[in-house]
Amino acid sequence: MKEVRVGIIGVGGMGSAHAHSILRGDVPRMKLTAVADAAAEKLTGYPDDVECYTDGNALIASDKVDAVVVATPHYSHTTLGIATLEAGKHLMVEKPISVHKADAERLIAAHKDKSVVFGAMFCLRPDLHYGKLRQLVQNGEIGELVRVNWIVTNWFRSQRYYDSGGWRATWKGEGGGVLLNQCPHNLDLLQWICGMPVAVRAFCGIGKRHNIEVEDEVTAYLEYANGATGVFITATGEAPGVNRLEICGDRGRILIEDGRVVFYRTEVSVEKFKNESPAMFGRPEVWTVEIPPAPGGGGQHTEIFINFIDAILDKAPLIAPGVEGIHSVELANAMLYSSMTESTIELPLDSAAFAAHLQQLIKNSAFVKAASSGATPADLGSSFNTNPA
Amino acid sequence: MKEVRVGIIGVGGMGSAHAHSILRGDVPRMKLTAVADAAAEKLTGYPDDVECYTDGNALIASDKVDAVVVATPHYSHTTLGIATLEAGKHLMVEKPISVHKADAERLIAAHKDKSVVFGAMFCLRPDLHYGKLRQLVQNGEIGELVRVNWIVTNWFRSQRYYDSGGWRATWKGEGGGVLLNQCPHNLDLLQWICGMPVAVRAFCGIGKRHNIEVEDEVTAYLEYANGATGVFITATGEAPGVNRLEICGDRGRILIEDGRVVFYRTEVSVEKFKNESPAMFGRPEVWTVEIPPAPGGGGQHTEIFINFIDAILDKAPLIAPGVEGIHSVELANAMLYSSMTESTIELPLDSAAFAAHLQQLIKNSAFVKAASSGATPADLGSSFNTNPA
Repeated sequence: MKEVRVGIIGVGGMGSAHAHSILRGDVPRMKLTAVADAAAEKLTGYPDDVECYTDGNALIASDKVDAVVVATPHYSHTTLGIATLEAGKHLMVEKPISVHKADAERLIAAHKDKSVVFGAMFCLRPDLHYGKLRQLVQNGEIGELVRVNWIVTNWFRSQRYYDSGGWRATWKGEGGGVLLNQCPHNLDLLQWICGMPVAVRAFCGIGKRHNIEVEDEVTAYLEYANGATGVFITATGEAPGVNRLEICGDRGRILIEDGRVVFYRTEVSVEKFKNESPAMFGRPEVWTVEIPPAPGGGGQHTEIFINFIDAILDKAPLIAPGVEGIHSVELANAMLYSSMTESTIELPLDSAAFAAHLQQLIKNSAFVKAASSGATPADLGSSFNTNPA
Repeated sequence: MKEVRVGIIGVGGMGSAHAHSILRGDVPRMKLTAVADAAAEKLTGYPDDVECYTDGNALIASDKVDAVVVATPHYSHTTLGIATLEAGKHLMVEKPISVHKADAERLIAAHKDKSVVFGAMFCLRPDLHYGKLRQLVQNGEIGELVRVNWIVTNWFRSQRYYDSGGWRATWKGEGGGVLLNQCPHNLDLLQWICGMPVAVRAFCGIGKRHNIEVEDEVTAYLEYANGATGVFITATGEAPGVNRLEICGDRGRILIEDGRVVFYRTEVSVEKFKNESPAMFGRPEVWTVEIPPAPGGGGQHTEIFINFIDAILDKAPLIAPGVEGIHSVELANAMLYSSMTESTIELPLDSAAFAAHLQQLIKNSAFVKAASSGATPADLGSSFNTNPA
């Protein structure tokens, strides 16, 4: 049986979880052969046949590695991702694929050889509820999109969380706040289900609820090409948060909340009823339909890894191709840029303009991190020298 | 037993309902003595002792009338309201109290003699759910306000509705769309519960879902003095609509939906937990509290009328003083103005600037109403000659 030999760069929280999942055998045909982390103390406890590196590029160069998982702080997703692709090795990059759109463009441009598999860890795509919703939108069940509303404020974080790494929640170390760290999954699902908006006007609270220099509260208004509108609300300072996604179309409304998908389906087209009803105050009849989740799947990270291996060994289509990771980056960037420039941002976003804006934020930063007992050199090491060019 | 002799100006849909409620004896100590409508055919079927006028000012002048209810199309609320107050008679004006803030200021300025009672028909204020929510906000149960979100899109209207009156949904005849016709109650409750925001940025769809010249879809972002944010979403073209109000504060979140008030109450202050928790990913514990509605009341229009009579005869405090009606007008105006000028509007709104803006809309209007079987001269009569000066 063929197998894929994988190396993981960055074995902090997420990378370490991936490593142990693979070691447990959660992912058939995937074998962990190497780990890398700038913090040598994180490289202990691995089996003897797992190579250990303090330099990610050395791992990429290893002839024991066919595929690389990049799970480092955000900025180095781009640099290590490019190095992996240029070495002709398969790549699975954690979210966000890059800090900003120009970096994402560079990363995607490095994916020249399409026999090399480049996936992104959008582990909520296999979630059965969102997959079902996407299916209902794509097959026309909900009809023409009218309005989308996602309130996802259940990303509560304590000040201690932000203090735990010197790189966290800084322009230089992380490149953004809740939009870039917590919300990539939500922004990816939003565009996966509804497509990209054509304009964004957002209002961000910068260090509003925590002692940080990046955004921790966002309200964004979206406009789509067909005239549909959207609102996306997120926060890390609210408790208890909400996670409520609703999509309204010409055939009613679908709501995802509390683990349920409910379709309030109008018996007829709303547009048709609106135009043809002889009644002043009549409304279309509505069926309340409890939608079961899509069959199969739902395995989160594991399912994304299984699919990655299937793509490498069997040419299966990727659930989350790396190239699609640019959209959530672009949405995050556009929301921040809109807020800081107090203007509506038309999409596609001017990636160079935003990169320059971010560089300016880094340059002008006067923020001093609170003394941080949890910060380690490792946290800092792999991100600082990979700021946007 | 003393009683208040009341005349109603405008006995179309709402005014006629008020008249029959009073005639049925729903409101103790309130006696219907006169009705007026420019459409004489609407004046039939009243008891012989009810005076009938085709001129509202004649009703106001009648010595059989102590109090006047103004239930005409919007523009004349101001003119007839001022005439009533200047005649020294008690006034109950339907919502909105005026079409725009400058008119509302004029109306309020005419209320010089405070022994005259001036109330507004905000008949949702007695609603037990909203009253309870207000109480929980005002007595500090929810703590410092963090975020408010009201999605109230269950105002579906057919094209036939808009075609039913020549004055409807025109700048000249009605002065606005969903914000001014359907939403005054919601906007009033919003400010009654949360206070007025300090800034508004809104995005309105003008004739977007119907063949009309005014707004039928609104997304508004609000900012409050303490930094809290808000979103208000409404529409008349969506089905099935939503009516979901949530308020988040330092002690959790209160949700009103489907006739229930649920308080997701954090065991401790969110702010305190955020700053003091040693855990990176910990969250405050949450109690789910089902809140019963406030005791008593809930009688909608009838309760507002009973309170109006109590105010006149017993000096009871008004549930909805007319002067407070300016806030919902200001919010509606600010949302429209923000959208049409594509800018953030700081409150208080410049009332003269908005009045000039509305005059311009009326002047530039090229909209031709579809042939309307339901339009009557009465619908038009009392509004056209009372446009903003």
